[in-house]
Amino acid sequence: MKLYDFAPAPNPRRVRFFLAEKGVEVDNQQVDLTKGEQRSEAFRAINPAMDVPVLELDDGRCIHQVDAICRYLEELYPQNPLWGRDSFERAQVNIHNHQIMLNGLMAVAEAYRNTTPMFVDRAVPGPHNYAQSPELAARGMLRVANFFSDMDAHFAANQYVVGDYFSIADIQAVVVIDFAKWVKVRIAPEQQHLQRWYDQVSARPAAKA
Amino acid sequence: MKLYDFAPAPNPRRVRFFLAEKGVEVDNQQVDLTKGEQRSEAFRAINPAMDVPVLELDDGRCIHQVDAICRYLEELYPQNPLWGRDSFERAQVNIHNHQIMLNGLMAVAEAYRNTTPMFVDRAVPGPHNYAQSPELAARGMLRVANFFSDMDAHFAANQYVVGDYFSIADIQAVVVIDFAKWVKVRIAPEQQHLQRWYDQVSARPAAKA
Repeated sequence: MKLYDFAPAPNPRRVRFFLAEKGVEVDNQQVDLTKGEQRSEAFRAINPAMDVPVLELDDGRCIHQVDAICRYLEELYPQNPLWGRDSFERAQVNIHNHQIMLNGLMAVAEAYRNTTPMFVDRAVPGPHNYAQSPELAARGMLRVANFFSDMDAHFAANQYVVGDYFSIADIQAVVVIDFAKWVKVRIAPEQQHLQRWYDQVSARPAAKA
Repeated sequence: MKLYDFAPAPNPRRVRFFLAEKGVEVDNQQVDLTKGEQRSEAFRAINPAMDVPVLELDDGRCIHQVDAICRYLEELYPQNPLWGRDSFERAQVNIHNHQIMLNGLMAVAEAYRNTTPMFVDRAVPGPHNYAQSPELAARGMLRVANFFSDMDAHFAANQYVVGDYFSIADIQAVVVIDFAKWVKVRIAPEQQHLQRWYDQVSARPAAKA
């Protein structure tokens, strides 16, 4: 298998982290988003949504979109499950993973894509162009601050996102916290529960992937 | 099992449609969102995210958030699979279901929540308040129009969202098309492929659930 990747970007990092937790190695091909390589004819044939990551299977079929890739990999490599160990735990992972996407990842993206010169007229990912909005960037910053304080409260009572079980939701959340540095938001000194969890998850060898 | 539901709202309809496709009946309790019942102390104990739908299991445990509920139900009732029949098809369903959520459901919500008096200061679901934005409402309307034309193009080459396989992604997409009526968007006369698919899926008995 081959992963179409762009090392600095948050979304492909989620898949690299996931693969490293599974102990699975795949080929890697960088797609330089700063040069617009994701919009080339060749790459659009691989992924019409024009984003990374994309997982190319050995038979040439492709899967894009982080959750779809990681659910596929979980089926292929069921050891060390990262999407939950039983049906109710899987539901908890799904709930939190979804909420971290909506309230964390998309909040940082809202702040970042509406202010960064590289994303002029590209405020929303995908094939259509949308103008940047300073108002939306400001709302994104508010939402990022709320996400950080909500997570701090959550980790006062939970070792990981889902109780004492490390999951894909932790992977996503750590990537979001690091992505927030791009809009100059960091864990505040008083957010000790969030910091404790962040240090714990960031220390996993797979976090360096 | 019991479903906490609000009949007019799009998200719980997705679960009712799903259950009806499975031929599974559950108890139903209405939570009147127009009266703010989802913000009551009693309901917050059931679902701290303060939204519907919520599936209460027979042992009292609760699952909220549409995808988490429908994935749980798929495990419990694997007959007539709606999330894909093999791992690659499941990946396709996941990709499209996610994109329809981002580009369809959230686009209509962007247009609706930023204009409707009931959502003053509630432009984003969840525990935090955010002001409405006329600029964002206008962007939402552009995104809804693009979603309709993208889906029309998609159905020129596909019977259902994922080829010739009816899935949860079709359920979500039909609910989005109906939700768009709330912002006065309807399938245009020239969008014949979208109309063909919409008529086909809406005619399923489960669509009335």
